[in-house]
Amino acid sequence: MKKTARSIGVFDSGVGGLTVLRALRALLPAEDLIYLGDTARLPYGTKSRESVVRYSLHAAEVLAQRDLKYLVVACNTASAAALHALRDRFAPLPVIGVLEPGARAAVAASRSNRIAVIATEGTVQGGAYQEAIQLLRPGVAVDARACPLFVALAEEGWTDGAIVEAIARRYLEPMFAPRAGERAGAAATDVLVLGCTHFPVLAGCMQRVVGPLVTLVDSAGTTARAVADQLAALALLRSDSGPGRTSLLATDGAARFARIGSQFFGEKIAPEGVEIVDL
Amino acid sequence: MKKTARSIGVFDSGVGGLTVLRALRALLPAEDLIYLGDTARLPYGTKSRESVVRYSLHAAEVLAQRDLKYLVVACNTASAAALHALRDRFAPLPVIGVLEPGARAAVAASRSNRIAVIATEGTVQGGAYQEAIQLLRPGVAVDARACPLFVALAEEGWTDGAIVEAIARRYLEPMFAPRAGERAGAAATDVLVLGCTHFPVLAGCMQRVVGPLVTLVDSAGTTARAVADQLAALALLRSDSGPGRTSLLATDGAARFARIGSQFFGEKIAPEGVEIVDL
Repeated sequence: MKKTARSIGVFDSGVGGLTVLRALRALLPAEDLIYLGDTARLPYGTKSRESVVRYSLHAAEVLAQRDLKYLVVACNTASAAALHALRDRFAPLPVIGVLEPGARAAVAASRSNRIAVIATEGTVQGGAYQEAIQLLRPGVAVDARACPLFVALAEEGWTDGAIVEAIARRYLEPMFAPRAGERAGAAATDVLVLGCTHFPVLAGCMQRVVGPLVTLVDSAGTTARAVADQLAALALLRSDSGPGRTSLLATDGAARFARIGSQFFGEKIAPEGVEIVDL
Repeated sequence: MKKTARSIGVFDSGVGGLTVLRALRALLPAEDLIYLGDTARLPYGTKSRESVVRYSLHAAEVLAQRDLKYLVVACNTASAAALHALRDRFAPLPVIGVLEPGARAAVAASRSNRIAVIATEGTVQGGAYQEAIQLLRPGVAVDARACPLFVALAEEGWTDGAIVEAIARRYLEPMFAPRAGERAGAAATDVLVLGCTHFPVLAGCMQRVVGPLVTLVDSAGTTARAVADQLAALALLRSDSGPGRTSLLATDGAARFARIGSQFFGEKIAPEGVEIVDL
């Protein structure tokens, strides 16, 4: 890593990671941020582990050529499958995923030691959240479920209303229902981890379905906080007041990236502001 | 094309094209069929036209090396974007897409000359159905809409029930509602084209929503019929009685291909029966 390295690189399979970029932008206004969405090969969540590792290395390579001081893997599936491979490949560049900060926040929030995780198929089947949570606090019960329709709803921009609520009930109620054969008053699941960067835009509806006693953990905010802490520890935070630049790259479809990405980023993205790169 | 060429190749971005394979299997029991699902790069429906053309050429190349007498593009998005490129590249191998047979069946079924088309984003934005229908019968009004949640529902295996019906109402009712400013009794839209190979598994629910007076056109059946007719015309049908072989290839994830593919193919697919090929 060069002393002059300036930017924080953020990579995701598509537009969902823009929720992480948004949190970083809010927390670190002076920093230069470069985001790459691998839209030509999204979604990662249904692909095999081997493919996700290969795609992640390709995508990170593009960012690593652009003068990075830090790399954020803003995709739960890639964090679960490829974090070690990325750290090996790009050392000494520090690399962080969204999964470990999410697991840490979940454990901190849970009193009952029963945690629910919703994510993509790839993340759930790989068992990475289950493992990360158990490592932090052995004996915690983790119930993980793939919720692919939430991804489609978020991309369609249907973030609330009767349809979203019906789907949320179908996915979430079984995770929060009393378990068969359990004594009345047994500790209830009290944390829901949004283990996919698409899900925060549906958080309002999810909170209504699971009730006010359940804490929703959104890895975007917790990851941004972890990045800020580590940059401070490494004396890599910019000392001037900014504002920093935000650069957006995608591997396919600038118009779609801008249109759907805007709701994840929380502000309007112009298609002509998205640079298309070929992997 | 060699005289000894034996198989019909069928290619799709993933598992949806298995509805076409199923129709071919039923109609042509003696033929050898080879199916390739490009699961490493699905979905095509949200990718740019250039990417879809490139992916389609790669995928077809794998099939073309396996002694084909006919190539079926069992993906609406690829049919819309890449049919000409595939015909140029693989001539004199005959290549057919699902789009033209679907358009032909729609025009044949419509009395009111008002046709609704539901498809992926890529297919709708490319305007290929609109164009194919207009070519066959100028002056037909075509209302096309992208319905990405139908793809997610079909893959999740939620093919009926209250959630599917609510989503179908939200997508379809505006397409079949009387138009503002139109006189009472004006001709109503009377055909719904299922312009994505995922959609036939949701047909029962869609039919209830649009009512019994609307004809649903499913391109799987019409494409299989067109293939059979053309093979007969070219004297390429097998004369022995079979049964023919069915070979399944995918570019990623045999387990997922088998699990989700089974509902599209209509019979159980074993993961060990799926050959993984690298593009």
